[in-house]
Amino acid sequence: MESYVVGVDIGGTGTKFGIVDKDGNVLFSGEMSTKKHLQVNTFIDELHAHLSEMIEKVGGFGRIRGIGIGAPNGNIYTGTIEYAPNLPWKGIIPFAKMVQDKFKIPVKLTNDANAAAVGEMMYGAAKGMKDFIMITLGTGVGSGIVANGQLIYGHDGFAGELGHTVIIPNGRKHTGTDQLGSLESYTSATGVAESAKEILSQSDRPSVLRTINIDEITSKDVYEAAIKGDEVAKEVFEFTGKILGIALANFVMFSNPEALILFGGLTKAGDLILKPTRETMEANLIEIFQNKVKILISHLKESDAAILGASALMWE
Amino acid sequence: MESYVVGVDIGGTGTKFGIVDKDGNVLFSGEMSTKKHLQVNTFIDELHAHLSEMIEKVGGFGRIRGIGIGAPNGNIYTGTIEYAPNLPWKGIIPFAKMVQDKFKIPVKLTNDANAAAVGEMMYGAAKGMKDFIMITLGTGVGSGIVANGQLIYGHDGFAGELGHTVIIPNGRKHTGTDQLGSLESYTSATGVAESAKEILSQSDRPSVLRTINIDEITSKDVYEAAIKGDEVAKEVFEFTGKILGIALANFVMFSNPEALILFGGLTKAGDLILKPTRETMEANLIEIFQNKVKILISHLKESDAAILGASALMWE
Repeated sequence: MESYVVGVDIGGTGTKFGIVDKDGNVLFSGEMSTKKHLQVNTFIDELHAHLSEMIEKVGGFGRIRGIGIGAPNGNIYTGTIEYAPNLPWKGIIPFAKMVQDKFKIPVKLTNDANAAAVGEMMYGAAKGMKDFIMITLGTGVGSGIVANGQLIYGHDGFAGELGHTVIIPNGRKHTGTDQLGSLESYTSATGVAESAKEILSQSDRPSVLRTINIDEITSKDVYEAAIKGDEVAKEVFEFTGKILGIALANFVMFSNPEALILFGGLTKAGDLILKPTRETMEANLIEIFQNKVKILISHLKESDAAILGASALMWE
Repeated sequence: MESYVVGVDIGGTGTKFGIVDKDGNVLFSGEMSTKKHLQVNTFIDELHAHLSEMIEKVGGFGRIRGIGIGAPNGNIYTGTIEYAPNLPWKGIIPFAKMVQDKFKIPVKLTNDANAAAVGEMMYGAAKGMKDFIMITLGTGVGSGIVANGQLIYGHDGFAGELGHTVIIPNGRKHTGTDQLGSLESYTSATGVAESAKEILSQSDRPSVLRTINIDEITSKDVYEAAIKGDEVAKEVFEFTGKILGIALANFVMFSNPEALILFGGLTKAGDLILKPTRETMEANLIEIFQNKVKILISHLKESDAAILGASALMWE
């Protein structure tokens, strides 16, 4: 009798989950809110309700080998979620144990971006690669690093927090971490909106973005303005791409990957962001790295990569 | 009959070499100039002369298993030295093959900092560690990264060029690479001398360094002035440490090492540089990494670490 695994991808806004077979087919999938749950218990209760229903459809809990979970600041060694700035639950949460107690089946947990990297390596753009870095540009900026064909977890299980590396010393303050000038403060969805506000308030240049209340501008608004040719909106992506390019150059000089795989909302802006990113990356690389590293956009369905990666934890 | 290996550490100024036994004892060692050899052939001829003499003392070439070499921009996959900014030989040099043709014994070549990292892991401060980063602060700034107990070589064999990561965008120009604001342009011996010149020429503050012709100030002069309490010299190390601290924070958030192992001339400045380094590193880390990562100074004899590491290539 075929067995399945459950993959769960917890994000700051929403959580996606699905039932996956051995070949990486997502048989059923669903979604729920993360941020409305101020308590982790009610979150797990709702997750249990959704998944129980779905698991019934594939023959009941007896068919489920376990649950693999990707979560921000998730730690594969301890099964805990620790001080995740973008989640409603503070401190150190023994998340894997709590889910295991509720579901009575094995649970493994890792960082959400690490899960996505495993998904890309098994089923996506990084298939067959031994050295690559996966970077998610979403509400936050996450990353998963594969070297020598293995995911790098690090000594405490927290490797690959590239969104928090400092790119502009004494730069923009990150409201979640209090750091100055970190990558995430510029190249997340929030960072793009912030850059738009800065550029708009520093000049009187015309822009369709001025029809929106300045405090309500989102990265989506900036994107929609940019594809219509709005110069200010295009400059926002240019600025964002330049900062991302410096960061990518640094990552390349760290682990010399074959490819950088970008994933998440901001990649929809295509060359508006990728062109300045590529150019700035190349300009900051030393000769031995120039014109070698591929920048690829993930081809997996956005909802699938992390679910697949998380589920892969249970096939190991 | 016991066999030995030869370890060779090629630096921009000088080259060190030694005969090493299985337990990591350096039986004989020597040194020669690198930079006086404008041709790689004459360099190899001189190296052959020195080593032949030394090899006779341990019983001849029949006792030598091979030669392990660490060199700047050395590539373990191809055995080539590629575009090394601090070496007199330009372009791509098939160095391992050239040495093998001359000596008629097996040769392996890798990056000098990678070799030093292997030396630390086998015989030094990183003994038993699975995740650490070795950073050499010398004429240049090199690095070797170990994760999951393995050296990270990367897709093209050039992983760990942390000295060339950009810390201050649009900062100081590196004369070798033309990059702006790279770590090496600030925290190498040359970088420290440069910072002293900048600080001296930007004010009239008294300093014993003013007794030296400004274009001839070396990092050693700055060190000697600083330990005598010279305020300007102390500020140079403070400034250098702050930049190093930002870089180290970024490296920690990349691979989450157990320790950072510092090696090379600048570490002699002790807390003059280490205190601002540590403080700035901690200030730039996100919570999950704070107060966890050790900053260690290599305890191996400076001449030994890279010779041991290079020799270890041949025991593998």
